[in-house]
Amino acid sequence: MLNVAVVGATGYTGIELIKILLRHPEVRLSSLTAKVEETIKIQDEVPELFGRIDMTCSNLDVDEVCRTSDFVFLALPHTVSMKFAPAFLGAGKKVVDLSADYRFSRKEVYEEWYGVEHSDPTGLKAAVYGLPELFRHKIKSAELIANPGCYPTGAILGMYPALKENLVSEDQGIVDAKTGVTGAGRKASLNFLFPEVNENFMAYNLVAHKHTPEMVFILGETLGREFEIEFAPHLLPVNRGILSTIYLKVGKKVSEDKIRELYRAAYEKEPFVEISPGGSLPRLSQVTGTNYCFIGLRLNTRTGNLIVVTVIDNLVKGAAGQAVQNMNIMNGWRESEGFE
Amino acid sequence: MLNVAVVGATGYTGIELIKILLRHPEVRLSSLTAKVEETIKIQDEVPELFGRIDMTCSNLDVDEVCRTSDFVFLALPHTVSMKFAPAFLGAGKKVVDLSADYRFSRKEVYEEWYGVEHSDPTGLKAAVYGLPELFRHKIKSAELIANPGCYPTGAILGMYPALKENLVSEDQGIVDAKTGVTGAGRKASLNFLFPEVNENFMAYNLVAHKHTPEMVFILGETLGREFEIEFAPHLLPVNRGILSTIYLKVGKKVSEDKIRELYRAAYEKEPFVEISPGGSLPRLSQVTGTNYCFIGLRLNTRTGNLIVVTVIDNLVKGAAGQAVQNMNIMNGWRESEGFE
Amino acid sequence: MLNVAVVGATGYTGIELIKILLRHPEVRLSSLTAKVEETIKIQDEVPELFGRIDMTCSNLDVDEVCRTSDFVFLALPHTVSMKFAPAFLGAGKKVVDLSADYRFSRKEVYEEWYGVEHSDPTGLKAAVYGLPELFRHKIKSAELIANPGCYPTGAILGMYPALKENLVSEDQGIVDAKTGVTGAGRKASLNFLFPEVNENFMAYNLVAHKHTPEMVFILGETLGREFEIEFAPHLLPVNRGILSTIYLKVGKKVSEDKIRELYRAAYEKEPFVEISPGGSLPRLSQVTGTNYCFIGLRLNTRTGNLIVVTVIDNLVKGAAGQAVQNMNIMNGWRESEGFE
Amino acid sequence: MLNVAVVGATGYTGIELIKILLRHPEVRLSSLTAKVEETIKIQDEVPELFGRIDMTCSNLDVDEVCRTSDFVFLALPHTVSMKFAPAFLGAGKKVVDLSADYRFSRKEVYEEWYGVEHSDPTGLKAAVYGLPELFRHKIKSAELIANPGCYPTGAILGMYPALKENLVSEDQGIVDAKTGVTGAGRKASLNFLFPEVNENFMAYNLVAHKHTPEMVFILGETLGREFEIEFAPHLLPVNRGILSTIYLKVGKKVSEDKIRELYRAAYEKEPFVEISPGGSLPRLSQVTGTNYCFIGLRLNTRTGNLIVVTVIDNLVKGAAGQAVQNMNIMNGWRESEGFE
Repeated sequence: MLNVAVVGATGYTGIELIKILLRHPEVRLSSLTAKVEETIKIQDEVPELFGRIDMTCSNLDVDEVCRTSDFVFLALPHTVSMKFAPAFLGAGKKVVDLSADYRFSRKEVYEEWYGVEHSDPTGLKAAVYGLPELFRHKIKSAELIANPGCYPTGAILGMYPALKENLVSEDQGIVDAKTGVTGAGRKASLNFLFPEVNENFMAYNLVAHKHTPEMVFILGETLGREFEIEFAPHLLPVNRGILSTIYLKVGKKVSEDKIRELYRAAYEKEPFVEISPGGSLPRLSQVTGTNYCFIGLRLNTRTGNLIVVTVIDNLVKGAAGQAVQNMNIMNGWRESEGFE
Repeated sequence: MLNVAVVGATGYTGIELIKILLRHPEVRLSSLTAKVEETIKIQDEVPELFGRIDMTCSNLDVDEVCRTSDFVFLALPHTVSMKFAPAFLGAGKKVVDLSADYRFSRKEVYEEWYGVEHSDPTGLKAAVYGLPELFRHKIKSAELIANPGCYPTGAILGMYPALKENLVSEDQGIVDAKTGVTGAGRKASLNFLFPEVNENFMAYNLVAHKHTPEMVFILGETLGREFEIEFAPHLLPVNRGILSTIYLKVGKKVSEDKIRELYRAAYEKEPFVEISPGGSLPRLSQVTGTNYCFIGLRLNTRTGNLIVVTVIDNLVKGAAGQAVQNMNIMNGWRESEGFE
Repeated sequence: MLNVAVVGATGYTGIELIKILLRHPEVRLSSLTAKVEETIKIQDEVPELFGRIDMTCSNLDVDEVCRTSDFVFLALPHTVSMKFAPAFLGAGKKVVDLSADYRFSRKEVYEEWYGVEHSDPTGLKAAVYGLPELFRHKIKSAELIANPGCYPTGAILGMYPALKENLVSEDQGIVDAKTGVTGAGRKASLNFLFPEVNENFMAYNLVAHKHTPEMVFILGETLGREFEIEFAPHLLPVNRGILSTIYLKVGKKVSEDKIRELYRAAYEKEPFVEISPGGSLPRLSQVTGTNYCFIGLRLNTRTGNLIVVTVIDNLVKGAAGQAVQNMNIMNGWRESEGFE
Repeated sequence: MLNVAVVGATGYTGIELIKILLRHPEVRLSSLTAKVEETIKIQDEVPELFGRIDMTCSNLDVDEVCRTSDFVFLALPHTVSMKFAPAFLGAGKKVVDLSADYRFSRKEVYEEWYGVEHSDPTGLKAAVYGLPELFRHKIKSAELIANPGCYPTGAILGMYPALKENLVSEDQGIVDAKTGVTGAGRKASLNFLFPEVNENFMAYNLVAHKHTPEMVFILGETLGREFEIEFAPHLLPVNRGILSTIYLKVGKKVSEDKIRELYRAAYEKEPFVEISPGGSLPRLSQVTGTNYCFIGLRLNTRTGNLIVVTVIDNLVKGAAGQAVQNMNIMNGWRESEGFE
């Protein structure tokens, strides 16, 4: 049994990590920490965990976590993770970081978009971007995983096969994405109160969302060429899930069925990616609570657009589930271990 | 045109007051104040008001409000209203207070349940409980109105005819009430974040909710006898509305139709109370955005229970709408002025 | 591996049965039937099943089901189950019926409330009411289980300990229950369209709901005395879950803590019942997707009322989950087999 | 007072028409018809109307409507309107048709996309497309108005200024639109049951939605050149509202502020179009229940995309409200008559 710590246990991602890890047969939850005023019982803070777990949650004490745990999930805000990751790595622990701190191997990109200096360039060099469908080989031997952002996961998986196969004739695409409210985090807030979000819908952070450079950077590194993205996020009145509608201009004569075949081939061996049959399109409910990414597509012969629709659960494949998938790969376990 | 101030303009009740007052033909909004860090435009803080109003909102300055306004709505938290009401009354302004501060003519009841000393016993004596259906006569000449709580409005209107007509054989009843989330106020909070409330439902404050003594006290004063209430509030995943299911034990031989007739007679002249026909029951959507209280009822001959179901919009008849209805009465205007 | 059939596979209960059975280690789904115009793929009808199952679903052919299956779940409408159950029993199959057809050992009660003659009095005699917490012993050797109604499950579990311990001084109680919309079934309908239910809330079937006699009958049989129930169901704008707020008049001097202890003792060995600690109250989200019933309680010393709040997932503990729990008991398996 | 008939009174659009017309000072509701089995009271069918109206609703009898009414709203399904419109026009009544039947002055376009022959080419010639912001002049003297589709209203208003000012460098654009569920109509259905839509989100009818040619045709006629549109509709779990996110490639050097100015100028005199200030973006709640269209925009200098976000209430500006706005124009009344 691997002793596993969740640092940042009281956020939506931390809670989801706990739920998945509790049913993981190879793992023992050895430590929960969070920014708390005093040590609490995690099940008192999170009623959904009552009856499933009886464990305390204290403020982060790196030495204590190192003493009890061999594997560490950092579910911390951006810029906080990079303060703690080096200590865990230095103590020989493997780390999956769910913040953005280690997602850009080029320090300057991070610093430009996140507006702070990166304090751990060494870690940045060592980190592997934890999208198994593209980087499984590197993940196997990594010590530090930069777990992908929720939006980039659904967007990259939706664009990658078309770009890799050179189907796209322009050097940019559009990602119109819609997320559930847990994506905004679990913290006191006026903007995400129920009456502000319910029966409502809005676009936000157009042009400027920090997940834009992540998509662009990772695709760029992988394809060896630049591909610009118009990323437009929207806030849905649902708890969970991201649906991304992706518009790519197709240059060649190629049929919708053929494109679907290429997508299917690209993800044939993937345990968590499914292509919707025929012209059918995936919906959020198909992936809620699962680690799946479902992909549907339509080709518009009038406009020349390929429209790719992808759905994921933002807390699972978009965060905690993918983090556990990475842990499974790093430990040589079945990739679907811990998932039903 | 009456110059009207809204003190506490950025809460849900304050916003609703603004919306109603903007379409009121006899009124001019003369002042908006709220606890703000700097003077803001109200429409920047509340996107729903953009295009309907262009007005600033500053911190409360009593003198300034007295200078510009003749009528004051206090949409302040409990215990804060009683600090400011005396100054407005002293300056000759009429006041409708939407907090609980002036709802109990007996100081001790307030102090027992709200846990603070009452600082304005003079105001308390003068104040009139602003439920028009029971106290219209006193409201006409009042200087200070204690606007009823949202739950008590629906509950008292549902119980009053049965109690007045001596249909109830026991000295207590049950009010199982369900409210929309705006009832919790518009302030940064973790408990009322969308994902904490959506797809969820819960009872809260059983036995101890502060609206219990308000129902008991007002009914007691009106009936001249004690009637105890088991009040059980619940939180609904909707923005607005309160549905109260009320259980009263009926002592006499009386038919459901006869009881319905008595209810209809009791509210015959009321512009904002409607009795549902036959055995049909009202639902929230019938009153959303309106100042109505709809009442349906069923008699169970097996159990001897009269079940009364009432619905109101918690922000309208349960707060801002009733406050405006009171203003209309105090000014001798048509009671439905300002409502469609 | 037990070969299991789901008859009525395309309703919400049938779909939930499929989901649970797919992860049950002792079971093989051998047959799916439903009222369909032509044989379909179940995953085409129910997108949530795509990628998890690849199986056809045809119209019911009793012989064919008997040929392929050893255990049959009937997820059929009331009055339809009793037409088919005898054939399966006659062929030596064990049956869990999720309709109301076999819930009343006294034929007359069924006929009075359901308004039809019961066509299988033999089955009625043999059937066992499948509430494991009360009837586990009989379930073990049963051939035919009448799976409890969703409302009665939460209501009976909430009242039983107080009644068994003679805490209740009156011969009746009140159950104010609120259900998610899946309780209304998966069939074309105007009343349950999204815009009719969303941002809405209503009571329905007061005095007359068919689950009333089920609660009364089962409690009466178990306690050996009559206990009348005022049952008031309401429709919540959520997908799943039932919260029941139960009001019982307490006769003796007994503390809230003592009552909580009695409840805890009553369900001590139950794998799927939990008592909320202290005065805390359970909420729907604690049981969504699980087979648990959570119970919280408060005693009001002013009114003498014991208020019991229970929550279940109407599709799991209230239907499909309890049905599988019964199957586990009938086969001598661990009762929580198939649940996480 | 103008005597006004609503044909198709029990759908969501018909109900909304009734609500608006009830508060319209120049109008008397003279006739309500719908496909009903027997004559009903409209308030029995639609609880939201109880207490506001007491009127019967029968099957359509053209002569009877002509006898009682001078102005007719046809809220009928596509292909049904064109069967009845000629009779009303022939009797000298003015007609606003809310179906698609008269939206295409070129018969072939309708027949290609709607798959039926058009039975009233005369009406088609006479009809005016009722988008006041583009065709007010023609609407004034029209006898038959083709009220625009809900999606085209928000999309055309969002694209028109940019296209008219020749800001767009490509001959096509993308409209990623999201609608509330009332857009699907009020009819018994499995796909739009609450549990099928709630906590869910999906794209539908990609490439093939019938509102595509409407946008393309109207813009083409107005601009005198072809502009192709990729229209991707999605279903939101809210009752009302459409948010359209529109992507247009900008060819010239022009600033975001300059574009905003052009939009503001284009709609300066419009009573129901507002441009969001600065880079702020409109949200659904700003227009719910109103006849407004709010428009916000951002220019991405990295990609060259202009992103326009428009919001309308699909039942008001997207249907019934715009229909009444057209009636106001046709009668020479203030355009905002009947709206708050």
